[in-house]
Amino acid sequence: MNKWRINNQELLEDESLLFTGNGYIGLRANFEEGYPQDYPSIRGAYINGFYETVTMEYGETAHGFVEEAQKMLNVLDPQTIRIVIDGEVFSLFEGELISLERRLDVEAGYALRKVDWISPGGHHLKFEIRRMASFDTLELFIIDYRVTSVDFAGEIEIRSTIEGDVVNYTNVHDPRVGARHAKLLYPLKSKVSGNIMSMQAVTEASKLKMAVHVTHDIDFYYVMEGQSIGGVYESRLSPGETLAFRKYVAFTDSLRHQDLEKTAEEILRRALALGSDHWYQAQRDYLEDFWDIARIQVRGEAGVEEAVNYATYQLLASAGKDVYSNVSAKGLSGEGYEGHYFWDTEIYMIPFFTLTRPRIAKNLMKFRHETLEYAKEDARAMGHPVGAKIPWRTIIGKECSGYFPAGAAQYHINADVAYTFIQYYLYTGDLQFIMDYGFEVLLETARLWILIGHFDPEDRFMIDTVTGPDEYTALVNNNYYTNAMAQYHLHHTYHFSRLITRNSPDVWEVLSHRLGVFDGELREMQRASESMFLPYSDALKISLQDDHFIYKKPWDFAGTPRDKYPLVLNFHPMIIYRHKVLKQADTILAHFLLDNETDEVIENSYRYYEALTTHDSSLSACVHGIMASRIRDPEKAYAYFKESLYLDLKNTHGNTRDGLHIANSGGVYMGIVYGFGGLRIKSDGLHLRPVKPGVWESLGFSLLYRGARLRITLGESLRVETDKPVEIFICNRKYTIEDVLEVADYENC
Amino acid sequence: MNKWRINNQELLEDESLLFTGNGYIGLRANFEEGYPQDYPSIRGAYINGFYETVTMEYGETAHGFVEEAQKMLNVLDPQTIRIVIDGEVFSLFEGELISLERRLDVEAGYALRKVDWISPGGHHLKFEIRRMASFDTLELFIIDYRVTSVDFAGEIEIRSTIEGDVVNYTNVHDPRVGARHAKLLYPLKSKVSGNIMSMQAVTEASKLKMAVHVTHDIDFYYVMEGQSIGGVYESRLSPGETLAFRKYVAFTDSLRHQDLEKTAEEILRRALALGSDHWYQAQRDYLEDFWDIARIQVRGEAGVEEAVNYATYQLLASAGKDVYSNVSAKGLSGEGYEGHYFWDTEIYMIPFFTLTRPRIAKNLMKFRHETLEYAKEDARAMGHPVGAKIPWRTIIGKECSGYFPAGAAQYHINADVAYTFIQYYLYTGDLQFIMDYGFEVLLETARLWILIGHFDPEDRFMIDTVTGPDEYTALVNNNYYTNAMAQYHLHHTYHFSRLITRNSPDVWEVLSHRLGVFDGELREMQRASESMFLPYSDALKISLQDDHFIYKKPWDFAGTPRDKYPLVLNFHPMIIYRHKVLKQADTILAHFLLDNETDEVIENSYRYYEALTTHDSSLSACVHGIMASRIRDPEKAYAYFKESLYLDLKNTHGNTRDGLHIANSGGVYMGIVYGFGGLRIKSDGLHLRPVKPGVWESLGFSLLYRGARLRITLGESLRVETDKPVEIFICNRKYTIEDVLEVADYENC
Repeated sequence: MNKWRINNQELLEDESLLFTGNGYIGLRANFEEGYPQDYPSIRGAYINGFYETVTMEYGETAHGFVEEAQKMLNVLDPQTIRIVIDGEVFSLFEGELISLERRLDVEAGYALRKVDWISPGGHHLKFEIRRMASFDTLELFIIDYRVTSVDFAGEIEIRSTIEGDVVNYTNVHDPRVGARHAKLLYPLKSKVSGNIMSMQAVTEASKLKMAVHVTHDIDFYYVMEGQSIGGVYESRLSPGETLAFRKYVAFTDSLRHQDLEKTAEEILRRALALGSDHWYQAQRDYLEDFWDIARIQVRGEAGVEEAVNYATYQLLASAGKDVYSNVSAKGLSGEGYEGHYFWDTEIYMIPFFTLTRPRIAKNLMKFRHETLEYAKEDARAMGHPVGAKIPWRTIIGKECSGYFPAGAAQYHINADVAYTFIQYYLYTGDLQFIMDYGFEVLLETARLWILIGHFDPEDRFMIDTVTGPDEYTALVNNNYYTNAMAQYHLHHTYHFSRLITRNSPDVWEVLSHRLGVFDGELREMQRASESMFLPYSDALKISLQDDHFIYKKPWDFAGTPRDKYPLVLNFHPMIIYRHKVLKQADTILAHFLLDNETDEVIENSYRYYEALTTHDSSLSACVHGIMASRIRDPEKAYAYFKESLYLDLKNTHGNTRDGLHIANSGGVYMGIVYGFGGLRIKSDGLHLRPVKPGVWESLGFSLLYRGARLRITLGESLRVETDKPVEIFICNRKYTIEDVLEVADYENC
Repeated sequence: MNKWRINNQELLEDESLLFTGNGYIGLRANFEEGYPQDYPSIRGAYINGFYETVTMEYGETAHGFVEEAQKMLNVLDPQTIRIVIDGEVFSLFEGELISLERRLDVEAGYALRKVDWISPGGHHLKFEIRRMASFDTLELFIIDYRVTSVDFAGEIEIRSTIEGDVVNYTNVHDPRVGARHAKLLYPLKSKVSGNIMSMQAVTEASKLKMAVHVTHDIDFYYVMEGQSIGGVYESRLSPGETLAFRKYVAFTDSLRHQDLEKTAEEILRRALALGSDHWYQAQRDYLEDFWDIARIQVRGEAGVEEAVNYATYQLLASAGKDVYSNVSAKGLSGEGYEGHYFWDTEIYMIPFFTLTRPRIAKNLMKFRHETLEYAKEDARAMGHPVGAKIPWRTIIGKECSGYFPAGAAQYHINADVAYTFIQYYLYTGDLQFIMDYGFEVLLETARLWILIGHFDPEDRFMIDTVTGPDEYTALVNNNYYTNAMAQYHLHHTYHFSRLITRNSPDVWEVLSHRLGVFDGELREMQRASESMFLPYSDALKISLQDDHFIYKKPWDFAGTPRDKYPLVLNFHPMIIYRHKVLKQADTILAHFLLDNETDEVIENSYRYYEALTTHDSSLSACVHGIMASRIRDPEKAYAYFKESLYLDLKNTHGNTRDGLHIANSGGVYMGIVYGFGGLRIKSDGLHLRPVKPGVWESLGFSLLYRGARLRITLGESLRVETDKPVEIFICNRKYTIEDVLEVADYENC
């Protein structure tokens, strides 16, 4: 008999990898029945955008330092279901575990755990537990629980609870996890009303409330005990018999729901009335629609297609679908980075949605518009008299960065947000969205470039003392990425102003008046864009990461043992900043996003910076893969793609336990579409420049482009199918495709 | 009748200005009788080097961030003496204040307060209160209290207490003052033993104990009440009669005293036995000896001489005189900068002691040797494999900087400490001190230059990512000050190794073996020194503050209203760093200390940087004054000197309440001796290059130089008197002076 051993480390990773989420709620894949005392499980249930306000302290503070931050909360826990048979409590850590199977079904939209177990007393039972967060009704979470007796005859008791004594996970040794503020949510009241039990909780500072309501489709009776409320069901089980029930859970919160109780009760009554089959079907329907465009096909290497689609599913399961939320760095799978939203959303996640599910993309972009007042406040608090500063990390839109050299100094996020709007417009032609939301965001954020930059005596526009994407080089002058992205940002701000003026002069009149923008300001933006200084080395023929990077002391890579990585956990930031070493793609990322240099400069830069990059950031491998495709180095592209593909699945960064790296999930998708597919969205339209890894037979993906549904397959030849005529560029050559286009020898175009 | 009004702001400033200290203890000039409830007095008594360990928290932390800091404590308070006449309590805030006179007598070494007062009930009394911290017996503090009745006849009660409920002053809005950790010291026991009352207190983390023992020279009886222990004396007073008594206080602490109680009791018994006249005389004797060399004479402008000698007295009253202490930024006059020792000691304070009281100078330098192990630990904690990093701010020698860009990034302090040893050696020729202490400090701190710097392809030695003295430009590359000081440091480290080898080969053998230093390492230091890159502009003919400073965006000085200064309290550091604006002397300071560039470069640099300097730091004006003398601009020199002279006396920086700016006190002295006297200590000996402000008739100062006592007077002519033959350089011309030298027209040399 194959006796399973439980690996603590893997269990923790699986809690993230198999989490159940729908963008509103996320539940880590914890065992319903619990763990032994002090077992290092991170039990977590999260509501996107539900936060507490916590104070920030500093060894020494300075003007404009963030004084309050938001923190995502681990909310009331409805996961617990305990099974007692003849006095024995079901636990994977006692008795004999014959087999344990766990998986996430991305077609059906649930996580499954199958357990074959013999109790310490020798009773043999099988369990099948499905967990689903409904995409149809975002508040709804269902645990479908089946326990089958193989040889047991006797009493069975089920205790299904809501636990109120919840804390946030903290780790004082890892700056990527919150170090303080464990206890932030306090139960307010518990209640039993008919067959529904519920608990409400509140935070101290933000005063937000949330509630968990639970019902079951068999008759439980309910008891309250301390900070726990539980349903109890008692019965008998005989060999061969299965006891099956559903735990229906409704999450509500005071950000979104006027009446937490009423809304939840309605949801639960409807859930119960329709029954679980309905919800399984609704979930499948939703995902069928999703996969219709989102699905990636990879032929020729086992497991890759599955892993890619796993990644895109996590994007869907993590992305906020209302105005109160966005996508946190870890999605809803863990507490790393305290549930904050970063520029990851714009640069790594939104592209997937723009191409496949534009409604979600628009919602994520609208979040920045919705929170623009906070971004203006933040700029003022620092001492910037005008403009808006998009926060480096946030939940409600106010800056939460507690270490500005690698946080608030990343002004580039202003341009990153603008970039997403611009790309969305170029892809969809949706000027209305720009007029309604985009232009205001672009303008307010562009104002900061004019404020922090300046024209030098040679009339070049210079931007000093910022941090680019790379966090191992902080507070630098003329960061190439920042300057190049600001150039794009400033240019399109001006360009949009002209476009709106031409297309909708009346809209422009209202808009420009409301935003207090005059022609002089816009022309100054265009002039800054045209005069933007992009540091370049004649000798090396590379774009220079910043004014000084190449002159720094070389890092002693040979003398740095493996356990000294990531460097950020082993060296004072200043020591890192002093050296010629990179954490992640920076100039290379700019070349990817803007495709604004010659092939020679792009390739030289790639070779130069890649050799100095530790990839200590999870944002790095995917971009290096994409750009390896760009410089026609498919082996390297494939290697980086695999690194990115298995970053969480194989826990290569060692912290998957704290949550999935959702930006990297987006990077996996981009590795296929932007990398191997060579997709770029430019002012003249959609470009492809494909290159397929040699080991694969074929590779396929779909796009929704200007009303057409495109299916692109890279096999022997390149095949583009469309249901409507479209124009696209392949290797810079424009094609008008009526239905199907086949291009042979497409990699040498 | 001239009725006085009390000005709250001035009272707070006077608490610092009139503080009583001797380098071991310091007591703010608080009123013994106290203040109305909630009156903004900062009541403080301090023991140099007596600290609590407090935790440092960060919005986001990173590797090597300081996790624990030390904080100087406000210790048990023995100041309180309350007078009650017929039920009326003496208070300056009630009744009628006819006159109040306060002064510090720097010849006698005490502070005096004279009060002429009519009680609300109409009783007329006069008070004369002297406070003295003995330079002879550092633990001893005496309050000499006299109350004279003008027209009062009745009962008088005196209550003289030790107060145990003490807290540190905090201010969350000013980073120059601690924001947290108010309550840190806890009374342990109170005791009455014969005519001595005492209280002991302890800290929670550092476990340090301190005690205050008190006795009086008239018969008090003692009562304990809560966290207070008090002596009560009851008597009657008649018109014309004076009641006089002395409160003898002994401070002891567990850092220095094995038995706090026994030591204190012995001191008090001796104090009482010898009587106050003895202590007044001992104080005067000590100061006579001090002033014999330290006194500055200025003829021709009222008040200047007094103000200069006030400044030097504060240096004496603040400087630690044992191995447990140094000189904190505010001396012992207040809690600004939490009682930390900075590079202020080396660059601004030690020069005074080197020239006038070398024993104190040596003690302050030995502190760095004594604490070198901590400096090595700090270097290791950051990730530096070898060397020592002198802390930016500290009490026990471990780094306490909580904001590294303006703290731990100031590597220059390694060179500043070395500089002081080198200057001391060049001035005294005391190689023994270098062998015993200096070389080890120089070597360990020099090792860091080799580690953080590197030879570029042109073989220039470059040092990146450091902060120089100026705190408005942080984390810069090739800071001129840092590089130039490191050059001096590295050169002399090599040079001393050769000198010791030649003079004491046996000492060298032991020393080099103990320090693990080989010839190759020393030669590499010399090579780095010779190849040091000192940024320079051919176009401007100035030393460049760093690689990038002159290319930054200009600060809008015209658009910055007065209330936006200091900038650090009104703009996010990043905004400041981005601009061409300086807080304080940086390149100009290097030119002062090293005198290493041509007159033209020194003058051009001065003019260039001066125009961009806000002098938001109190370390700035004095250096600008000295260097104005250097470039022969006596009007400017005089103006800056006056700014420096009255910085605290007129509270021009607005924070004298938090303590005196002791570095500036040293700067006042240097303004005379290094500024107008043009003194420099160079490898070939002592240099003078005097220039006298036109408004003054004459200016005189004394020096102890190589066993000779020099008296230098700048009047019509320059007069140098010596009691032994000495060689000195005047305007680069070498003179051997037997007894007197007169040089006419000395300003045009």
